[in-house]
Amino acid sequence: MVAQLNETERDAALKELSDWKYDPGRDAISRKFKFGDFAQAFAFMTRVAIHAEKADHHPEWFNVYNKVDVALTTHDAGDNGGLSQRDIDLAKKIDSFV
Amino acid sequence: MVAQLNETERDAALKELSDWKYDPGRDAISRKFKFGDFAQAFAFMTRVAIHAEKADHHPEWFNVYNKVDVALTTHDAGDNGGLSQRDIDLAKKIDSFV
Repeated sequence: MVAQLNETERDAALKELSDWKYDPGRDAISRKFKFGDFAQAFAFMTRVAIHAEKADHHPEWFNVYNKVDVALTTHDAGDNGGLSQRDIDLAKKIDSFV
Repeated sequence: MVAQLNETERDAALKELSDWKYDPGRDAISRKFKFGDFAQAFAFMTRVAIHAEKADHHPEWFNVYNKVDVALTTHDAGDNGGLSQRDIDLAKKIDSFV
C-alpha cells in the first residue's frame, strides 16, 4: 500500500508540475506531448519506459504517430487508487526527458 | 492517397486475422494483448515500433503495465480514413511478434 497524497500535499506538488492537468475523478494527472515524428515520440517513450521499469512505477499512455498522452496514478494508493508521491516523482522525471 | 479496402476485400482479409476485432464505426481493426509484465509488453511495442517506422505505417496504441491495446486504420485512406492493405500487413506482422 502506497500513501495517497492529501489535498495539501497534492496542491503543493502540482505547483511544480504546471504542464500537467489534474483529474479529480480519477485522482490522476495527465500531460499530452507532441514530437516531430513517430521516431522522436517512441524515443521519448523508451526513455520513460526504462526509467519506469527501474522505479517500478509505470505510466498509462496512448500513442499515435507523433503524439503521446500520459496519465499517472498509483493503483495501490488509497482504497481505489490515487495520486501518490511516486506519480509526482515520475512526472518530474518525464518532464526532464523533453 | 491509399486505397481503402472494399467490403469483399476486407472480409477476405479479416478471415486471416481471427484475433482482431473490426470496428465498423471507425473502419479500423483492434486487438488487445496481455504480457507477463511491463518489460515484456514494452519489448513487444519496441519490435512493432521498429517495424512500423520501416513500413512508414504506425499503430494507435494504449499501454498500461502488461497490457497493450492496438488499433489500426489508415488516416489517408478514403475520405475520412479507413482500413487499407497496409493495416492488414501490419496486423499480420504484429501477430508474428507474439
